[in-house]
Amino acid sequence: MSVLQEISSNVKNMKQLEYSALARRLKQIKEDLRQGVRKPFKEVIDVSWGDPHRGGMKPLTFVRQVLAACLYPQLLIDNKLPVDVRRRAQKLLDGCAGRSVGSYSATGGIPEILQRVSEFISRRDGGVPSDPENIFICCGSQWALTRILNVLVNAEAAFTTGVLAPASCHRTTTLSIEGLGGVVIPYYLSEEQGWELQVEELQRALESAEGACNPIALYVINPGNPAGHVQSRRSMQEVIRFASEKRLFLLADEVYQGCIYGEKEFVSYKRVLAEMGPPLSDTVELASFHSASKGFMGECGLRGGYVELVNLDPAVQKYIYNLFTTDSCAPLLGQIALDLMTNPPLPGDPSYFQFDQETQHIKSTVVKNVKKVCEAVNGLQGFSCQGVEGGAFAFPRIHLPAKAIQKAKDVGMQPDTFYCLKLLEEAGVLASPGSEFGQKEGTFHIRFCILIPHDVLEELLRRLTHFHSQFMKDFS
Amino acid sequence: MSVLQEISSNVKNMKQLEYSALARRLKQIKEDLRQGVRKPFKEVIDVSWGDPHRGGMKPLTFVRQVLAACLYPQLLIDNKLPVDVRRRAQKLLDGCAGRSVGSYSATGGIPEILQRVSEFISRRDGGVPSDPENIFICCGSQWALTRILNVLVNAEAAFTTGVLAPASCHRTTTLSIEGLGGVVIPYYLSEEQGWELQVEELQRALESAEGACNPIALYVINPGNPAGHVQSRRSMQEVIRFASEKRLFLLADEVYQGCIYGEKEFVSYKRVLAEMGPPLSDTVELASFHSASKGFMGECGLRGGYVELVNLDPAVQKYIYNLFTTDSCAPLLGQIALDLMTNPPLPGDPSYFQFDQETQHIKSTVVKNVKKVCEAVNGLQGFSCQGVEGGAFAFPRIHLPAKAIQKAKDVGMQPDTFYCLKLLEEAGVLASPGSEFGQKEGTFHIRFCILIPHDVLEELLRRLTHFHSQFMKDFS
Repeated sequence: MSVLQEISSNVKNMKQLEYSALARRLKQIKEDLRQGVRKPFKEVIDVSWGDPHRGGMKPLTFVRQVLAACLYPQLLIDNKLPVDVRRRAQKLLDGCAGRSVGSYSATGGIPEILQRVSEFISRRDGGVPSDPENIFICCGSQWALTRILNVLVNAEAAFTTGVLAPASCHRTTTLSIEGLGGVVIPYYLSEEQGWELQVEELQRALESAEGACNPIALYVINPGNPAGHVQSRRSMQEVIRFASEKRLFLLADEVYQGCIYGEKEFVSYKRVLAEMGPPLSDTVELASFHSASKGFMGECGLRGGYVELVNLDPAVQKYIYNLFTTDSCAPLLGQIALDLMTNPPLPGDPSYFQFDQETQHIKSTVVKNVKKVCEAVNGLQGFSCQGVEGGAFAFPRIHLPAKAIQKAKDVGMQPDTFYCLKLLEEAGVLASPGSEFGQKEGTFHIRFCILIPHDVLEELLRRLTHFHSQFMKDFS
Repeated sequence: MSVLQEISSNVKNMKQLEYSALARRLKQIKEDLRQGVRKPFKEVIDVSWGDPHRGGMKPLTFVRQVLAACLYPQLLIDNKLPVDVRRRAQKLLDGCAGRSVGSYSATGGIPEILQRVSEFISRRDGGVPSDPENIFICCGSQWALTRILNVLVNAEAAFTTGVLAPASCHRTTTLSIEGLGGVVIPYYLSEEQGWELQVEELQRALESAEGACNPIALYVINPGNPAGHVQSRRSMQEVIRFASEKRLFLLADEVYQGCIYGEKEFVSYKRVLAEMGPPLSDTVELASFHSASKGFMGECGLRGGYVELVNLDPAVQKYIYNLFTTDSCAPLLGQIALDLMTNPPLPGDPSYFQFDQETQHIKSTVVKNVKKVCEAVNGLQGFSCQGVEGGAFAFPRIHLPAKAIQKAKDVGMQPDTFYCLKLLEEAGVLASPGSEFGQKEGTFHIRFCILIPHDVLEELLRRLTHFHSQFMKDFS
């Protein structure tokens, strides 16, 4: 028997991801394929992650060249790499202790990179000032979010801490809130209105939590994940006013800010807040997250993200800083990836042409993918898909037949997990079930990554179409 | 005013590192030097970190070549890199989703690397079996330790959770324990006996905590940090028996296992436990930590570490797994660094000769450094230094004059912090004060890294010697 007779109920209550059953099955199927077992497909298309390289997207040459030169400065000596790559690598190495990416940096990040990230933010926000002292670079944006939740969620308080979070929402965030002893207050995005965030729904959610917990923060994801909506300025203003009235700390997950496909443009919460002027612009507390994992660069494996804090009480910011120092700095190559993401080559630089071609190619691929997905999925009986305005995912709704729902119940599974499992086994496509993210009672969805090469997407849709017709026939 | 009126007392109680005052001063001095302000030194020698590259040690060529080739596979095409480097990089890329280090891996790490790490452990431990299912690769060993403490420390329990930890001990661990709502039960290493860990002292510490908390874990650091001792097999057997009797979870920080300078050899807790046979070998719960940051590779900035769990209750292991999944995987290049550390080139491989030369050079440098430090420091009035058997640090004791102690009190500082501040300001050497790590009441120490080039160490000792004589004169 373990020495741990008593485990904190918060830790105990953390639910295993629904996904793991699918992940285990995937492992087995991959092993079967390796051993030559015959299946209706030769390999699995795994689009359950927001991970472009996994799906076959190519890394950006400029980014990889600079990173390789920082790691192996021998590459700076021969003249094979473009001059701006070598210059950038030299400059970045100057910011590393001992001129090595193998050294630790300060906890919050390399000062030169923090400075350049803050300049990027200010440019992005039309000149709204940004102070490097309020930026922390970390091992991915989720990491930063968890630390900030750690300060926000008070497990000791007489009243449980509540955090408003969208349904649907990626599960790592809700897991973190629960693991810290807080509760998630779900608010639903309006699927019919293109996954719009409506302030009346925030109001309803907040009222529903009355007496049950102490709501302290409002988590928003823009552009959406899994719902690929992009918020309008007006909608953000309403959210900010709501946060101010209800005294909620705003947590803005803006990691997909570089991935916009439609008419709408991305505007940051920080910018909208600044534009609204005092007293709001001086008082609403905001944390905004961004990451090198997301966007067209897609360098998930390097683990580099940042959070910018706005209007924080200096005492609270100090606690956050203290918590950050219990882990070491973010990986230096992840920090460098952030530098490159926020300061890409400019017109005239030797690397600009190739960089521009590569990013344009990715963008046009995804725009083509979005169009194709909506056409194909909306053409299937029992499927409907809102337009994808931004982000990395399509999140279509499936109207599952009663027989399929019953069958899922019989095997003790969520209906959309059951669908995804069948899709994996019979068509070799791994998508994520909507039940993993939370969804309106009685609705079902699947999520899949659209930041993938167009031919992979076409094959995915071929498999999905074929599988889905058969599935609907089997359970009609 | 912040929305956070109530902050968890655990978070509030986390103390800022003593170090930060020195870090701030360092920043100012560096800025002064950049602006041409005249000082008695041209640059600061910062030996306050266990960070070899910071101090000027060179990265291992083989490691950097493989990493660069993984990042920029173009390097695999031309034949400039040794064939074993290219083969290794190919093989490692095969283990990455989409053959890119920019993709996520499974939470616990890349399966192929987990397998190879477990084979390394088994080789190291003379054949004691190791199962990759019990290994988690993470963003540095401290990261893993914090997550495991998160499961061990139950903030809700009626009785506060206690963790036995050495004094002296690096501050990040004790900060983590406090931040989670636990308390540190310090046990003192016997400086006079070469920083030996004595079981009677563990007994004393445990008794002192009786009635005040519920001791649940025993944290040991071997080889020591900051004290550079290496535990004998006998001492480890005593510790294991003690842990078993008192039902304590053993947390073994073994990150410096590759850094041994004297007669003693490193033996892992896992091996000693296995050798002791049942019932101990089946029951004592153990977590052993290792890292690519430490050892002669010194790749701190890549952030790759692992923990191996032994004899854990499967239910508890599941909670740990759940907590690990609230953050994403460790950086892929950190994972690859672990693969290279645990599976270096072998005799006959094209890269072997250079690899062997480079590691031997580092090792002989440090052995020379250790000898030089002991001679020099023990030759100074008011200083005494135990032999350094392993690890990355010297941790000599300073017998500060009463006047200096009084002066420190007057300015509101710990006496050894005062000494370190003066050392920084007057001699341009940044060492860490013992008060940061905990030490016996009335004793004072400084810690500095010895994994640095020999000429840097000589300069450091020259400055220290000169400064110290003056300091003793000023305060005598």
